[in-house]
Amino acid sequence: MENQKKKAIVLLSGGLDSATTLAIAKTGGFECYALSFYYGQRHAMELDCAQEVAKTLDAAEHRIVDINLAAFGGSALTDMNIDVPHSSSSITSATEEADAEDEIPITYVPARNTIFLSYALAWAEVLGSTNIFIGVNALDYSGYPDCRPGFIAAYETMANLATKAGVTGEERLTVHTPLIDLTKAQIIKKGLELGVDYGQTTSCYDPAPDGASCGTCASCHLRLKGFNEAGVKDPRRYIN
Amino acid sequence: MENQKKKAIVLLSGGLDSATTLAIAKTGGFECYALSFYYGQRHAMELDCAQEVAKTLDAAEHRIVDINLAAFGGSALTDMNIDVPHSSSSITSATEEADAEDEIPITYVPARNTIFLSYALAWAEVLGSTNIFIGVNALDYSGYPDCRPGFIAAYETMANLATKAGVTGEERLTVHTPLIDLTKAQIIKKGLELGVDYGQTTSCYDPAPDGASCGTCASCHLRLKGFNEAGVKDPRRYIN
Repeated sequence: MENQKKKAIVLLSGGLDSATTLAIAKTGGFECYALSFYYGQRHAMELDCAQEVAKTLDAAEHRIVDINLAAFGGSALTDMNIDVPHSSSSITSATEEADAEDEIPITYVPARNTIFLSYALAWAEVLGSTNIFIGVNALDYSGYPDCRPGFIAAYETMANLATKAGVTGEERLTVHTPLIDLTKAQIIKKGLELGVDYGQTTSCYDPAPDGASCGTCASCHLRLKGFNEAGVKDPRRYIN
Repeated sequence: MENQKKKAIVLLSGGLDSATTLAIAKTGGFECYALSFYYGQRHAMELDCAQEVAKTLDAAEHRIVDINLAAFGGSALTDMNIDVPHSSSSITSATEEADAEDEIPITYVPARNTIFLSYALAWAEVLGSTNIFIGVNALDYSGYPDCRPGFIAAYETMANLATKAGVTGEERLTVHTPLIDLTKAQIIKKGLELGVDYGQTTSCYDPAPDGASCGTCASCHLRLKGFNEAGVKDPRRYIN
């Protein structure tokens, strides 16, 4: 008799990192409930990618929740009046740019991961799951405050006080971050081992209307550098 | 020359507690940005109340953000297939009921305050505010895990790691809970001192189509008990 699989909520953006995270959760024996958001992002075509990825990796369910981060603005990703920065120097990563300028990139969306995790927490509680997976990464974190290990640890502590489990002393909720210490190249190698089709994923902040990645935004730079270091060709289509 | 007022985000449900919280923030000298949510609640008429309250108490701005908690279900407040409990014993509070049964009420909405605070955090960051007000209450907290002081403290810690301020070491974000140690009667007396018109507020989980409060749900019980103890007549209209 097969044991019932443990349920996990997996945040899935349609990008490289979250697709790899879903593959890792699946390989770890979890029944995966993939969660994506339409939040007014200019690169909303990533949601089509998320759907393909969820299907390929056998998610038990995939929900796209329409939330409203553009209502607050403040980011190049949700405010059409702020341009996404582009650069032709193809190996400069967003992290390096952020370090050099000692500031947070304009593509940072205020409180985005906090909000995403909070919806994951709600769904987890309704499903009776105590496992949330998020593909944040401490090395190539692009200067975003809500991708750091300290943030994730504090979120987990808070989440355990926010929920029924925290009151009744049931099993603790865990926020899993399997990519936290990996380089982009290591993430790509891991994903390829686990059957991720990176042609289904997009990382571009500012894709062309036909879906081709720009190749010049900070996120494309990070991705291309990762494939370069992994010694693998990126199957995604680029403009340049 | 008048000093520029400090900005605060105030979570405003349209109920008694959050209206009092807004009045306290205003009296404390904050320029108040009121934030309400349509989250699929069956008592969505509370949003009309929130608008009246925000206007009366001179909020600098009032936003109602349409989020999607009903997508996950799991609560009598958002799932029309789950009935709101009613009781005719008019002085039994929700807290007493929860204590007696040692369980969390069916009106608990999973991760609601976590999600509300996360949107407040996003707006605060965009506005450059480091102050969030929420009208949670430790005494009459109805058995909801996300109304306890420990949860709020953990949220504040997490929020300071989630935001730009946390990275750059700027001023710390504070989650203000001015009602945390007050009884419902004390909250009502405080609000009356500060000019809150409680006739503009609604607390009912299950109001009649014409807006009258039921008088028999746990939230009506708490409210009526509070007015009774404060020795003041509740100006809200009730069915019973």
